[in-house]
Amino acid sequence: MVKDHPIHPVILCGGSGTRLWPVSRKTLPKPFLPLIGDTTLFEQAIGRISGDASDGGFAAPIVVAGPQYGSVIERQLDGKEHRLIVEPAAKNTAPAIALAAACLDPDDIMLVCPSDHHIADETAFRNAALSAAHLAAQDYLVSFGITPESPETGYGYLRRGEELPGGHKIARFVEKPDFARAQTYLESGEYSWNGGIFAFRAGQLIDELTAHRPEMAEAVLASVRQGRSEGSRFYPSAEVFAGIQGDSIDYAVMENTARAAMVPADMGWSDIGNWAALQDALTAAPVGSDCDTNVRKGSVDLIDCSHVLASTDGPRISAVGVADICIVVSGGEVLVTTRDGAQLVGKLPGAAEQ
Amino acid sequence: MVKDHPIHPVILCGGSGTRLWPVSRKTLPKPFLPLIGDTTLFEQAIGRISGDASDGGFAAPIVVAGPQYGSVIERQLDGKEHRLIVEPAAKNTAPAIALAAACLDPDDIMLVCPSDHHIADETAFRNAALSAAHLAAQDYLVSFGITPESPETGYGYLRRGEELPGGHKIARFVEKPDFARAQTYLESGEYSWNGGIFAFRAGQLIDELTAHRPEMAEAVLASVRQGRSEGSRFYPSAEVFAGIQGDSIDYAVMENTARAAMVPADMGWSDIGNWAALQDALTAAPVGSDCDTNVRKGSVDLIDCSHVLASTDGPRISAVGVADICIVVSGGEVLVTTRDGAQLVGKLPGAAEQ
Repeated sequence: MVKDHPIHPVILCGGSGTRLWPVSRKTLPKPFLPLIGDTTLFEQAIGRISGDASDGGFAAPIVVAGPQYGSVIERQLDGKEHRLIVEPAAKNTAPAIALAAACLDPDDIMLVCPSDHHIADETAFRNAALSAAHLAAQDYLVSFGITPESPETGYGYLRRGEELPGGHKIARFVEKPDFARAQTYLESGEYSWNGGIFAFRAGQLIDELTAHRPEMAEAVLASVRQGRSEGSRFYPSAEVFAGIQGDSIDYAVMENTARAAMVPADMGWSDIGNWAALQDALTAAPVGSDCDTNVRKGSVDLIDCSHVLASTDGPRISAVGVADICIVVSGGEVLVTTRDGAQLVGKLPGAAEQ
Repeated sequence: MVKDHPIHPVILCGGSGTRLWPVSRKTLPKPFLPLIGDTTLFEQAIGRISGDASDGGFAAPIVVAGPQYGSVIERQLDGKEHRLIVEPAAKNTAPAIALAAACLDPDDIMLVCPSDHHIADETAFRNAALSAAHLAAQDYLVSFGITPESPETGYGYLRRGEELPGGHKIARFVEKPDFARAQTYLESGEYSWNGGIFAFRAGQLIDELTAHRPEMAEAVLASVRQGRSEGSRFYPSAEVFAGIQGDSIDYAVMENTARAAMVPADMGWSDIGNWAALQDALTAAPVGSDCDTNVRKGSVDLIDCSHVLASTDGPRISAVGVADICIVVSGGEVLVTTRDGAQLVGKLPGAAEQ
């Protein structure tokens, strides 16, 4: 990567984050909240791929998001140069990524990043991004392979294959395994988590999508051709886009291509997928974590508590004797969940209603 | 007991109930709250000793309480005939009971009841009250001996001695034993909980207090002599009363007299001493308990929860995966406690501040 061939960051703002209810709400979902530290996950995602030209490497970001988030995104970008592609409808990651690819030159290298993940080690992230960009320039479709820390059953796994410079071919994709298999994967040392971070050459991504999802590719290209710009915003044609059958980039492209690769990334990654995951990230981070095992945000009094996350936007939380529990008070709602229960928070009536 | 010798109920309103914070507050403490069902514990205490003359037995109650509770007491008595003795200062149970005794005729039989306990079986209560009154008429100082249901370490225990008609002499008083000893007591079948409910002949109580706490007895009698009536309220002299060194009726009289007796009382008793105790009483009662093991009050959504008490005065409580926990939202405070932790709720800053 040289300065006249920078990496083009593509920041996806798709997730609703209902499992982080009641803090994450439809009106202001997870990416736009300061869940870790004083800046939002989106601001941190932008920060990771920013830097002046002497840092080498990153072009102004392309943000892909629904129209309802346009103003919060522009506010949080705070004048930073960017392009905003306004998704006419939520169609999962493949069309969103393809929209960005279609707006780039075919030889541009794009780095696709979710806007709602946490990455503790920015240097490791940048190094992995460089390795991924190199492989993408050789027409590999590259996924970040996160070094797994536990037998998580909520993630996809990538099995490493043949070695490549700075990475590996992907020998196999496994969708959310059961616990026993996840344990085997962890012990084997051959598997990584699929972190949802990708590097592609834009033209290659379009070619592969055309090969494996020709209708989707055609609709995306047409909606870009018929789209219109408005300042830094680009509006693809809603009419064509509406007909797309949504799919993830993994299903649509990665699991079908012969050129799937991965770069290892050991960078303190978390998808902050639920309150327990946020608790872990906050416990690991210096911000907000006390010298004991509890994490407090707002007015919180604890007696004989351990591994408690207590977060409130106003009313005081008082707790006695509890362990391994998240207590969240926000917007007039009170949530109490175990770490296991955190997976089901999105199924609560409150999370569904809002 | 015949109609011209009724039992004189004495209802003590002394406890602050800080362990039931944030619902119980200094301004409106535990006795005056509808914790079980739609009526307050005080109203239930009054109801238990009410009934027309044909029911036989109970004179209009004497209520002993601090001046700050006069109006709530009169409101909750709702026009019922009563006398209210306004305690000039909180001096524990011995002076409070002696005040009532000094306002009665020496031959009156008094039945002393806390205002903040729960009794599920009213018939059993009345039967025990009759037995206790018979023994009190024979100058025994009679405690209700509650059939113990578990090795509680928070209660005093009474050991049964020599049999009496309808009861026993008390062979021994034990203050809050440790768990191992409580277990032994439970298994022996010889011990009862000291429920804080007593029957005395008024004159006998004064005589015994004079024998064992002469200064306290003298001060109480003087403060009654120098007191003044105002409608149904009686104000003992504050000046004399202020000098009293407070003590419990157990320490001051029961543990010193040779005539301590007990009547067995298996009546679904609870002192509702903390949130776990309230949870137990609500789980046992038909009111407020669902067909599962959880108790809900107000807007509550639970997923995969068991043995949870969730009570809110407004904001919705949502909980996932938790067990054996009390979640209480009241007056802008949020409390989460385990059953063991419930003992320590009074030590929380919030409970201490109010």
